[in-house]
Amino acid sequence: MAKSFEQEHPVKAFGWAARDPSGHLSPFNFSRRATGEKDVRFKVLYTGICHSDLHHLKNDWGSSKYPLVPGHEIVGVVTEVGSKVESFKVGNKVGVGCLIGSCRRCEDCTDNLENYCPKKILTYDGLPYYDGTMTFGGYSDHMVVDEHFVVHWPENLPLDGGAPLLCAGITTYSPMKYFGLDKPSLHIGVVGLGGLGHVAVKFAKAFGSKVTVISTSPSKEEEALKNLGADAFLVSSDSDALQAAASTLHAIIDTVSAVHPLLPLLSLLKNHAKYIMLGAPEKPLELPVFPILMGRKIVAGSNIGGLKETEEMLNFAAEHGITADVEVIPIDYVNTAIDRLAKNDVSFCFHFPFLFQLVEIHRRQTKWHPT
Amino acid sequence: MAKSFEQEHPVKAFGWAARDPSGHLSPFNFSRRATGEKDVRFKVLYTGICHSDLHHLKNDWGSSKYPLVPGHEIVGVVTEVGSKVESFKVGNKVGVGCLIGSCRRCEDCTDNLENYCPKKILTYDGLPYYDGTMTFGGYSDHMVVDEHFVVHWPENLPLDGGAPLLCAGITTYSPMKYFGLDKPSLHIGVVGLGGLGHVAVKFAKAFGSKVTVISTSPSKEEEALKNLGADAFLVSSDSDALQAAASTLHAIIDTVSAVHPLLPLLSLLKNHAKYIMLGAPEKPLELPVFPILMGRKIVAGSNIGGLKETEEMLNFAAEHGITADVEVIPIDYVNTAIDRLAKNDVSFCFHFPFLFQLVEIHRRQTKWHPT
Repeated sequence: MAKSFEQEHPVKAFGWAARDPSGHLSPFNFSRRATGEKDVRFKVLYTGICHSDLHHLKNDWGSSKYPLVPGHEIVGVVTEVGSKVESFKVGNKVGVGCLIGSCRRCEDCTDNLENYCPKKILTYDGLPYYDGTMTFGGYSDHMVVDEHFVVHWPENLPLDGGAPLLCAGITTYSPMKYFGLDKPSLHIGVVGLGGLGHVAVKFAKAFGSKVTVISTSPSKEEEALKNLGADAFLVSSDSDALQAAASTLHAIIDTVSAVHPLLPLLSLLKNHAKYIMLGAPEKPLELPVFPILMGRKIVAGSNIGGLKETEEMLNFAAEHGITADVEVIPIDYVNTAIDRLAKNDVSFCFHFPFLFQLVEIHRRQTKWHPT
Repeated sequence: MAKSFEQEHPVKAFGWAARDPSGHLSPFNFSRRATGEKDVRFKVLYTGICHSDLHHLKNDWGSSKYPLVPGHEIVGVVTEVGSKVESFKVGNKVGVGCLIGSCRRCEDCTDNLENYCPKKILTYDGLPYYDGTMTFGGYSDHMVVDEHFVVHWPENLPLDGGAPLLCAGITTYSPMKYFGLDKPSLHIGVVGLGGLGHVAVKFAKAFGSKVTVISTSPSKEEEALKNLGADAFLVSSDSDALQAAASTLHAIIDTVSAVHPLLPLLSLLKNHAKYIMLGAPEKPLELPVFPILMGRKIVAGSNIGGLKETEEMLNFAAEHGITADVEVIPIDYVNTAIDRLAKNDVSFCFHFPFLFQLVEIHRRQTKWHPT
């Protein structure tokens, strides 16, 4: 006889959820499934606040389902493992990013590209889980996830500053590997200095590239050059500076999600160079075809990365001392933090200059903690 | 003492030129330079009429200089060679395509990619030649070209149907090689069945691909499937058919120069697939970013090819029996032929379904022939 929902989800959980498109988060009692054979249960230690959380919270993409518990940059410590779990033990530090499921059979899954599986299950607010239930993210006391979608946390990678790498890190690292930008002595442009952009600069420097940051905001110059170690800085409205830098870049990593002109940025590329888009503007961009043809340039996109590469990326980050720049906050500050993110979005919409905020949720959850 | 223009251009030549943006061609007497040390002089046997000739003739791109002698798909027989010419002898069949000069020193030239050299000299209506004179194309009785920009003509490649390969052939062959579409068992889409498109189908079939032709015009189906050997045909307005073919193609070769929507075509691509643009719409195309990101798709361009690869392409064509579908005409039919091309452009603007027309100019030029 099939088990009831209560039988399959017997473990009480606590998190913060939005109930409607206001996006306001408030305490939320729910339950999670029992630890399956291949499941890893872990206490959440840190969860990043990512800009995409805002879009989900406010139903900006029209597909949000409420109650909605966000969070997809999650670091925790294992509290229980299923009988067939092979890679994790109680006490291990672990990470969970954007994905908690995929078909495991398609060509992309076979190639360790679960992120491109058409049946991938997002950590929250995507397809329902295999048992038909809604998925709830990392703004919660604990999670239970199939071990395939859990990554080992490197010993010497900080938990707080490392957490956002599970989204911003893999989203920038993966295309840099795939498109061959991990070779030394390249000259890479990074457009936008927000969550993705500032991590892209750090990876590009670690790969041995010269890095030019391109931003709408002259005030970002000091952050780019002094704090992040970029080699050059261009203000995107300074046409003389752009002209002087024409045909100098082997690739551009464009992290901007707002609609913006490609033409002046494409002109910065050498022939045969690559323009990698990571932001997702809601409206199409204008693609000037002539410069693409005349320079055999490539415009491409990329979306997060697979599990194997995520673990590789974390190890690379640990080895090179790469973390995201973060501000750690308690969970009851979360609505203010999100307001700050949204306001930054309005005033600096071109380059999203927010820093990732981290939620320490576990302190409040002792009452509900399942262990 | 420097030689006068007349001393340096002592060889009388005859061609057909446009005098103004009406584009009307009429007989034109001019002169060409003496055969330099590295020059090959040849009698023109066939010249293709390409769609880009129309744009030059009518000053569509705003940079035409008159008198303008078009022609950049030129096959001829060598009549004289300079003292330091190494690769050609009198009597050799030769081809000249879009280029007659480049800097020979830049990274692209060093890589046999003269077509991407910023100082490349087009066969006509581009930068002036090194002696400061205008260049005149292949609608003429003879030409004199530096041997580096002359290609050997394969023994068993027809002169007439082979001539357009010097533009349409290399323009489609080069990106298929560069982007890895020359492997067998791929499924390639070809958008548009004009000069470029019909040659792209032939190369893709020769590389061992399954080929789907995508056209606005249902009447093209028979030509695609029966005459060109394509495996499938899609009408671009048939959304059910496009839906059924979603995510099936490893690459698309888009030969359309008119502004057209990319979104329905991008949906035909598998993840990690490549969209190669060869047509140059005058206005930007709308690039929907989300599908590019979610499938890690690549949108790229390509423009003709280098000299070494052009010779490789001709040999491949000869080996596989590939020629363009042509109609051979006498030179005094040229204005009518161009009108026919232009009218096709209007009534079938999406896919340019014209066939290349070939100009046999040599019959009329005995009077002026320099040999």
